[in-house]
Amino acid sequence: MGSRQRVAAKRENLLDLGVEQLRTSGYHGTGIQQVVGLAGIPKGSFYAYYPSKEAFAAAVVRRYAELFQAELDRMLEASRERPRAALRDFFDGLVERFVANGARGGCLIGNLGAELEGTAPAVSLALRETMGAWRTAFADVIARAQQRGEVASGRSPGLLADFLINAWEGALLRMKVESRVDPLRECLELLFDELLAPSAAGPSS
Amino acid sequence: MGSRQRVAAKRENLLDLGVEQLRTSGYHGTGIQQVVGLAGIPKGSFYAYYPSKEAFAAAVVRRYAELFQAELDRMLEASRERPRAALRDFFDGLVERFVANGARGGCLIGNLGAELEGTAPAVSLALRETMGAWRTAFADVIARAQQRGEVASGRSPGLLADFLINAWEGALLRMKVESRVDPLRECLELLFDELLAPSAAGPSS
Repeated sequence: MGSRQRVAAKRENLLDLGVEQLRTSGYHGTGIQQVVGLAGIPKGSFYAYYPSKEAFAAAVVRRYAELFQAELDRMLEASRERPRAALRDFFDGLVERFVANGARGGCLIGNLGAELEGTAPAVSLALRETMGAWRTAFADVIARAQQRGEVASGRSPGLLADFLINAWEGALLRMKVESRVDPLRECLELLFDELLAPSAAGPSS
Repeated sequence: MGSRQRVAAKRENLLDLGVEQLRTSGYHGTGIQQVVGLAGIPKGSFYAYYPSKEAFAAAVVRRYAELFQAELDRMLEASRERPRAALRDFFDGLVERFVANGARGGCLIGNLGAELEGTAPAVSLALRETMGAWRTAFADVIARAQQRGEVASGRSPGLLADFLINAWEGALLRMKVESRVDPLRECLELLFDELLAPSAAGPSS
């Protein structure tokens, strides 16, 4: 590897470590000292990659958003055929992951959103943009499901998408508090049986 | 005031400061230094009141829970006459507060629940117990509303109470991220129009 590639690889490694570190310990609970310790680099060299902890955390949020977006894109692709099932499969897949990891960690975006308020504006901006992108993706799938009558069409897809995101984040928070995945399953059960239930009247288009 | 009363008054004052400090800055974002600075006492004397930051934060959570419980009790009292309206009034009142304070702060319980995981077990226990008490209160009101046919009785009051709490916490989180109260209003609209809607068939009892 050339020098530029080595720098890029180290930067990537820092971001990957940052996702887990910030998800588990939060923004104020994470020190640069810990991050460089995990990465095995001297503390001073951290600043060669990022000018500040805030800039680093904002980059970590964007990395997480990027990884998540790849999964959303797969869901969107699958939603061409069976939109409501694709949406449900997506969330069932997330539940399985939390079953596998013992109901730990939750969502980096939700955790930082609940922790931060004004203290790290660059991070807050990245959180806001990430949730905006999620809203767009979920609203697209819900609109598709409504067109096929798989989801009742009485409410706007954007409103339902926001409610879905927020209810899910709240369920993740409760999962963390109780160390069990039941809140996630109950959240999906109520959402899909009620707000995202098929319309009685069939396809709207 | 006698010496014992002065100690009690200082302890109370520390708790009240702690509620706002921890709600705004989180657990790791709050230092004992800040708390004693706000309280105007020397740092060393903090430990005369609480053995550790963790013990202090757990006491702050219980204080917040106590204040909130007084409001829940008023709601429960009002719910004897019109349970569903009492529940709605309670949440509308919370929305008004967040309108008044500029959509800031959110919920101490939710914020700490999203931030902490295993690092402060005494705090986590207090969070879990608080959410358990909320579940009991909301389930009581919902059961009452179901008995009168004000809320459809197809789902268990406990399940609906948990979903209500979690969806609300998620909406508060989103409010913080977007600095606007719309997520709260949308959350209540969907909850009350759908999951907490009156049964079409009338009273179940």
